[in-house]
Amino acid sequence: MNFEIKYKDARARLGVLKTPHGNIKTPALMPVIHPGKQTIKVEDYGAELVITNAYLIYKNEDLREIAINEGVHELINFDGPIMTDSGSFQLSEYGDVQITNKEIVKFQEKIGTDIGTSLDIPTPPSVKKERAEKELAITLERAIEALEVRQELMLNSVVQGSTYPDLRSECAEILGKMDFQVHPIGAVVPLMESYRYKELVEVVMASVSHLPDSRPRHLMGAGHPMVFALAVAMGCDLFDSAAYILYAEDDRLLMPNGTIKLENLHEMPCSCEVCTNHTPEQLRQMDKKERVQLIAQHNLLISFAEIRQIRQAIIQGNLWELVEQRCRAHPFLLEALRTLKNYSEDLEKYDPPYKKSAFFYSGPESLNRPEVYRHLMKLDRIPNKKSVLILPRSRKPYSEYLHDIPRRYYKFKGNEEIKDIPIGDVQITVVDVPFGVIPLELDQVYPLAQNESPADYDENSICMVNKVLQDYLEGFQAAFISEDVVETFQLGGKFPMDIVHEIPETLKLEVDDNQRIKMIADYQFGTGAGEALFNGDVDIVKSRKTGKIRHVYADQELIATLRASDGVFVLGREGARRLHSFLPYPKNRVVVNQDAEPFAREGKSIFAKFVINCDIDIHAKEEVLIVNEEDQLLAFGKSVLNGKEILDFNIGQAVKTRKGGF
Amino acid sequence: MNFEIKYKDARARLGVLKTPHGNIKTPALMPVIHPGKQTIKVEDYGAELVITNAYLIYKNEDLREIAINEGVHELINFDGPIMTDSGSFQLSEYGDVQITNKEIVKFQEKIGTDIGTSLDIPTPPSVKKERAEKELAITLERAIEALEVRQELMLNSVVQGSTYPDLRSECAEILGKMDFQVHPIGAVVPLMESYRYKELVEVVMASVSHLPDSRPRHLMGAGHPMVFALAVAMGCDLFDSAAYILYAEDDRLLMPNGTIKLENLHEMPCSCEVCTNHTPEQLRQMDKKERVQLIAQHNLLISFAEIRQIRQAIIQGNLWELVEQRCRAHPFLLEALRTLKNYSEDLEKYDPPYKKSAFFYSGPESLNRPEVYRHLMKLDRIPNKKSVLILPRSRKPYSEYLHDIPRRYYKFKGNEEIKDIPIGDVQITVVDVPFGVIPLELDQVYPLAQNESPADYDENSICMVNKVLQDYLEGFQAAFISEDVVETFQLGGKFPMDIVHEIPETLKLEVDDNQRIKMIADYQFGTGAGEALFNGDVDIVKSRKTGKIRHVYADQELIATLRASDGVFVLGREGARRLHSFLPYPKNRVVVNQDAEPFAREGKSIFAKFVINCDIDIHAKEEVLIVNEEDQLLAFGKSVLNGKEILDFNIGQAVKTRKGGF
Repeated sequence: MNFEIKYKDARARLGVLKTPHGNIKTPALMPVIHPGKQTIKVEDYGAELVITNAYLIYKNEDLREIAINEGVHELINFDGPIMTDSGSFQLSEYGDVQITNKEIVKFQEKIGTDIGTSLDIPTPPSVKKERAEKELAITLERAIEALEVRQELMLNSVVQGSTYPDLRSECAEILGKMDFQVHPIGAVVPLMESYRYKELVEVVMASVSHLPDSRPRHLMGAGHPMVFALAVAMGCDLFDSAAYILYAEDDRLLMPNGTIKLENLHEMPCSCEVCTNHTPEQLRQMDKKERVQLIAQHNLLISFAEIRQIRQAIIQGNLWELVEQRCRAHPFLLEALRTLKNYSEDLEKYDPPYKKSAFFYSGPESLNRPEVYRHLMKLDRIPNKKSVLILPRSRKPYSEYLHDIPRRYYKFKGNEEIKDIPIGDVQITVVDVPFGVIPLELDQVYPLAQNESPADYDENSICMVNKVLQDYLEGFQAAFISEDVVETFQLGGKFPMDIVHEIPETLKLEVDDNQRIKMIADYQFGTGAGEALFNGDVDIVKSRKTGKIRHVYADQELIATLRASDGVFVLGREGARRLHSFLPYPKNRVVVNQDAEPFAREGKSIFAKFVINCDIDIHAKEEVLIVNEEDQLLAFGKSVLNGKEILDFNIGQAVKTRKGGF
Repeated sequence: MNFEIKYKDARARLGVLKTPHGNIKTPALMPVIHPGKQTIKVEDYGAELVITNAYLIYKNEDLREIAINEGVHELINFDGPIMTDSGSFQLSEYGDVQITNKEIVKFQEKIGTDIGTSLDIPTPPSVKKERAEKELAITLERAIEALEVRQELMLNSVVQGSTYPDLRSECAEILGKMDFQVHPIGAVVPLMESYRYKELVEVVMASVSHLPDSRPRHLMGAGHPMVFALAVAMGCDLFDSAAYILYAEDDRLLMPNGTIKLENLHEMPCSCEVCTNHTPEQLRQMDKKERVQLIAQHNLLISFAEIRQIRQAIIQGNLWELVEQRCRAHPFLLEALRTLKNYSEDLEKYDPPYKKSAFFYSGPESLNRPEVYRHLMKLDRIPNKKSVLILPRSRKPYSEYLHDIPRRYYKFKGNEEIKDIPIGDVQITVVDVPFGVIPLELDQVYPLAQNESPADYDENSICMVNKVLQDYLEGFQAAFISEDVVETFQLGGKFPMDIVHEIPETLKLEVDDNQRIKMIADYQFGTGAGEALFNGDVDIVKSRKTGKIRHVYADQELIATLRASDGVFVLGREGARRLHSFLPYPKNRVVVNQDAEPFAREGKSIFAKFVINCDIDIHAKEEVLIVNEEDQLLAFGKSVLNGKEILDFNIGQAVKTRKGGF
C-alpha cells in the first residue's frame, strides 16, 4: 500500500503517495512530458510527479535505446516520480497499436517507470452497452495479465465502462480487489471537451464509490483547472495536464473559470509573472515559439496555483465553498454540481462532520450539501417533547439573541393553549436556512452556529424549510409557530390565520443546561446517549469568560468537555466508560488486534494496520471507543478516517488516541 | 471634462481619466502611499495612479518642506498622477484636524497634486438622520468653498449621507451640478469591514444613479479585491488600497474570494511570484520586515490581476458572469448581489443590449439580470396573434431542433381546437430559463440564442417562468401548451389534465421568413417597426453557407442586414430612411448641432460635444438615427453610450456613424 490520507473534506483527500522516486503530496497535477520534445522544466512550476508516454518511447528507436540503457528518468531528465501511459490513447485515436499488453507492461518496468499502465481499451462515451461490456471484458483480462508479468512496478488499472454507471461500478469493484496501486478513471476526455460535466459526475461517482479508498484515483486527461475542485471533491487525487502546452500552442490561456483566446485578450488575466510582465499585445507580436513558451508557463502557474488552493481548502474544511464558486464558471458545471444531490448518502459518509471553517451558503446547491443531509438525519435522534414553539432566526447563537424577536404566533395544532402547557414540555426550535429546524439546545453545535446565509431567501430554501418544518411538526401533539415563520415560509392555509397569540412572559426563550447537554449528546452519539452519559448527579462547569458550558463531571471524574470551537463533546475517561456501556457493539468502536492492545492502553495512537474491525458508520473526526476483540474498552480518541477507510487502509493513522489507561 | 468611456458592460465603464501627469485607464486601483515611509515601488506591480495623504504631509515639517519646494511627486518619488486625501479620515478617526478646508485645498494645489480633495465630513453608517443631514450640510458648504479657492487643481468631491439613500442621492445630485472632476463615495469602510454589503449596494446605487456619468467615481477605502467586481458593475471606477500593506502587516493575504491568515495557510494561494517561490512555512520563519514586504507584494499582484480581469470582462461583455462568481465568496456578498434586483430599471438603461459573450446562468440571481428584465419589457412590443402553442426548450436555435420534441399538448384556453385555427394565426413560442417565453421568430436574437443554463431548474426559475407564462397567455384568445411545459413549470390545476392532444402534422414547427424579419424589427425598434421597414415587396437574401437571413432589400436598396453574431438588424440607408419616417421624434435620434452637420453627412463619427439632444432611452450599441435640429436625417450609426451619457459627456465619441450622405 502506497497511499496515506492526511486530511479530508467532502470526498476529497489530502494524501501522500509513495513511489520509488519519492513521496508526493496529493491532490497532484502531473504535467505530460513529451519524450524528446520537452522544452519547459515543469518542476520549476510546481510539478512533483510527471507523466510520459511509454508507447511513444517504445516506438522511437533512439528514445527506446536511451530509455532501456539509461532509464526513463535520464531520458526525460526528471529526478522525481514518473508515471507512464501505455498507448491506450493512441489505440483509441488510431484504432491500433504495434505492441501487446504484456510487452508494454514489461517495457515500462524495464525503463524504470515508477507507475506503469496496462493497455486498456478506452471505450468512448455513449457507445452501445454491448460494445462497452465487450471492451470492458478485454480491459479486465489485460489487467490480470499485467499483474502476471509485472514484478516490482507500481501499476495503474484504468476504470472503463463508457457512460454506464453500472459498468463503471462493476469495473471499479473488480479492479479494486486486485493488487493495483493507482486507479485512473479513463475515457472521460470526450465528456469534458463537450462540457458534459453532468455525465462526468455520474461516471466519477460510480467509479470512486466502488474503488478502494486506500488507492489514489487519477482523472485521466483532466488538465483544465475548471474541473479540478469539483473532481477533487468527488475523491479524485491525480490529474494530468497536456493542456498546458496544447492550449498554449493554440494561443489559449487556462483559467480556473474558463479558457481565454489570446486574440480576445485585452488584459492579462492572472497574477503570475507572465501576466504581470507582458501585455496581450506584446504576446501577439512575439514569434510563435517564444509566445507558446510563455503561455505554457502561465498555464502551468495557474494550474498549480489552483491545486494549491484546493489543498488549502481541504485542510481548512472549506472545499465545498471553493467548489461552489468554481462551478459558476459554466452553466453545465453548475448542472454537474446540482447532480451531486443524487449522491448525498455516499458523500455524507466521507465528509467530516466537524470543520475549521464556517458553512457558507452560496445558492440552492448548498441545500444539497452533506452537512444539511446529516443534520436532518441526526434530528431524528432527539426525543420529542409534547409541544413545540417555532421561532424565526435571530443572530447566532440563537439562544443569546431571542430576547427581542416578535412574540406573536399562530397555533398550528393541538387543543391546548401554550400558556397551559408546562414549560418543560415546550421544545423551542428556531427555523433557518439552510438547516431547516434547529432545537435551541443545539444552537452552538457545528455547523448550526457556524454558518452564514443571505437574509433574502431563494425559493429553493423556502420550499425546503417548508417541507422540513411540516415533517418536524408531525412529531408533536401541539405546535405554535411564529407569525414571521408562517409568512416567510408560506405555511398559510394550514390553519385559521386570524387567531394570533402572544408568547406568555412566563415562557423564557432560553435553554436549560441539563437539557442542553443531553440533547447535544443524543444528537452526537444517538438517542439515549444524553441519559447514559449524564444520568444521576453531574456537575456542569462553565467558562468564567464566556459563561458557556465547558466540562461535565460526575464525582470529580470528567465525563466530557464541550469543545468551544464547535460545540460538541470531547469524551473524558468517565464519558468513554459510560458510552461504552450504553452503545451496543460495534457502535462507535474501533477494534484493535492483540498486538496493538498494550499500545492502545498506553494512549498511543492507533494505526490502521492494527484495526481488525470497526463501526462502518464512523465519520472522520468523531469521538470513538478503542476496544479489543472482547469489546473491552482500551482507550478512546478521535477518528482520522471514516469506518470504511479505516478498514480499507493498512498504513497510516486511523485514530488519534486521547487517553488510554483502562 | 477629464473622463472618457471606451467600453461598457452592466453599469461598468472602461474609461480613460486625463490628469496633468498623464492618462490612466479605469477601472483603476490606487495604492495608498505613506509619505516618507513607503518601501514598495507600487508602479512595479501595475499602479498607474497612487493616492497619498496631504494632511500627513502638511503636519510633518520635513515632509511639508520638501513637498512645497520640490512637489509631491518628488516627495513620494512617483512620476505618474497623484491623488491626495485631505485629512477627512483623520477627522473621522480622531474627531479633529489642525487645518481648515481652504488651507488644505490650497496646500494640495501648491504641492502639485493632480487630484485634490476638500475636507468633507465622513458621516459613519447608521447614525441618526438628523446628524447625517447636519454633517452633509457642512460637507456641501466645504465643497463650494473648495471650488472658490482652487485654481487649476482637479478636485474630488465626496458623496456623504451615511446609510440614507435619499441623502446620498441628494448629495450626489448637488455635487454633480458643480465643477468637480471626480466623485468619491465616502464613509463606506465601516460597512465593508462588517460585511454589510447589502447596505453598501444601497449606498453606491443611490449615489451613482445621481452622479454625472461623465465623471469617475471612487469607492473610498475599498481595497479588498472581493468587492471590486461588484463595485465596478455598479459604476465605480476607482479604488484605493491601503489594504495591501495593512493586511500584510497583520500577516493576512488578500484573495478575490477572501482573506487568509498566514497562520492558517498550508499552501500558497495564487500564481504570483511570491506564492510560486515561497511556502507558508518559509514566510512564517522569516523576519517580520521581509515577510511584510513579500505579503504586500502578493497583495498588490493579486489586486491588480483582479482589476485586469474586470477590465477584460467589461470588454468581453461578461462582467455579470464574473460578478456572480465573485459574489459566492461570502453569503453577504450574495445577499448584496440579490439586492441589485431592486435596481433593474436603472441597470437596464446602462447595460448594453448586445455583447460579445453568451449569457451564462449561474443561479437565481441571473434571473434578475438586465437582459431578462429587458426581454420581458420588449416582448410587449410584439403584436399577438390569435392563438399560441407553447413548446418546451430544445437545443438552440430552437427553430432548428424542434423536429423531435414531444408533440402532446393540453388546451389551456379558447374554444377552438388547434387543427381548426389557420396556421398563420398560431404563434409558436418556446419556454426556457432564464428568458421565460421566446417567440420562435426571435430564436436567433441576442441573448435569446446566446445563453446557457442548467437543464435542472431551480425553484426560482420555475416560479419565474410560471408567472411569465401566465402573463403571456393573457394576450391570446386560445392557448395550447406542451405537456412537458405544464409538468415542468407546475401549471397543473389550471385546466382539465386528462385531455391531451397531438400537434397536427399540418402545423409545421418552423418560422416564416417574413414574419421573422418583422418580429425582430418590432422587438428591436418598437411595435410597428417591422411593418414600416419591410412593407411592400422586399427581397430576403440568405447566406449560402448557413441558410440564414443576411440582407433585406427593396428595389436593390439595402434596408437592413441581419448581423450573424447576434441576430439583430444593422440598418442600411433605405432602412434608416424608413425608420426615420416611422419613428416619431426624438425616438432613436441623436440630434447634432449645425457645426457637426456636414461631418455627419460625410459619415464621420459623432462626438458627444456636438450633440444637442437625443432620445434618452437609447442604449449603448443600438442603431440610431443622426438628425439635425429640424429632424432632417443626416446619417445613421451605432451608439457608443446610452442616451443619458451622450447628453452628459462633452468629450469622446457618442455614435459610430455607419453611413451619411442623406
